[in-house]
Amino acid sequence: MRIGILGSGEVGRSLARGLARHGHDVRIGTRQERVEDLPVGAPAEVVTGADLVFLSVLGTAAVDVVTSLREPLAGQVVVDTTNPLDFSAGRPELFVGHTDSLGEQVQRAIPDSFVVKAYNTVGNALMVDPDLPAGPPSMFIGGDDDAAKTVVSDLLGATGWDVADLGGIEVSRYLEPMCLAWVLYGARYGTWDHAFRLLRR
Amino acid sequence: MRIGILGSGEVGRSLARGLARHGHDVRIGTRQERVEDLPVGAPAEVVTGADLVFLSVLGTAAVDVVTSLREPLAGQVVVDTTNPLDFSAGRPELFVGHTDSLGEQVQRAIPDSFVVKAYNTVGNALMVDPDLPAGPPSMFIGGDDDAAKTVVSDLLGATGWDVADLGGIEVSRYLEPMCLAWVLYGARYGTWDHAFRLLRR
Repeated sequence: MRIGILGSGEVGRSLARGLARHGHDVRIGTRQERVEDLPVGAPAEVVTGADLVFLSVLGTAAVDVVTSLREPLAGQVVVDTTNPLDFSAGRPELFVGHTDSLGEQVQRAIPDSFVVKAYNTVGNALMVDPDLPAGPPSMFIGGDDDAAKTVVSDLLGATGWDVADLGGIEVSRYLEPMCLAWVLYGARYGTWDHAFRLLRR
Repeated sequence: MRIGILGSGEVGRSLARGLARHGHDVRIGTRQERVEDLPVGAPAEVVTGADLVFLSVLGTAAVDVVTSLREPLAGQVVVDTTNPLDFSAGRPELFVGHTDSLGEQVQRAIPDSFVVKAYNTVGNALMVDPDLPAGPPSMFIGGDDDAAKTVVSDLLGATGWDVADLGGIEVSRYLEPMCLAWVLYGARYGTWDHAFRLLRR
């Protein structure tokens, strides 16, 4: 697949390297001229004609970024990996929750795109080919379009993940707090290579 | 241990049977004269002198119940298994979240007790001796008192659980949404014997 990644931080770079390893044609959409040794392009150019777009910017920038790209993102599957993290209080909190979520805000900002919330309940080091004892871990996803979720689920399945589809994009209200559970465990025990798995009979 | 359980619904009855099987002296605190064949008593009587109290009433009743028992619960460890579930919209939602949680409301209502949020991210059928492939599952807990969390963690460890302590009682803001993730998966796939595990290296 041709994959465009919005975001040149740790998440974007990890996804770019990991997905390129699987043979995908990956570019990072950024205004920077270089992002390490990764292929880059202007955001609008990178998402145009992509088979899949990842939104991996800071949570505080997510809505602005997709709003500015509403036209080139129309009709496309957008994987929203962001979390509404707010560190201003000294401990991590969410800047939206309960009756709304960042996933829903992103979907509302690009109503002609198919947003799938995914990759937000695990750290960037494990996003592609997570190698954990007693795995595979489970990626919890949500989104309003079943075909878009199939694209994302197939990619997850091919890169080492079990998938647990929880429903529409509004399940971001529950997936974004799960990120905080992941963050708090990591901060408490000084570990960042943990991940959720959903055990079933 | 002598264990008092507030709540005679499915959760209370499952905990009562499961913990009695482990040799604990368990009674359900209720105003009903009988709850199947389980030992019962008046709520204030059952919690007085208990080594551990479970709060397993409906989320909508949780604060009222503990408020009415503030004196007999003083100094005691109270395991808050409740969730702020609201089914009035036709789909399950939470009636509190983001900047507050039911766990915090319960702790504020009984400031002289040591509230531990636990058992709220799994169904009652798996609360004691969960037998799942690729287990054990992980119980996510939070509470402000370390000694209280040790009591609960020891019980969990003895009854088939891995424990992941996320911090103070305010982590209920993240554990209660995880219940919704659990519920939504069950509702979508018609299964109620699933549980989270936290994989670590």
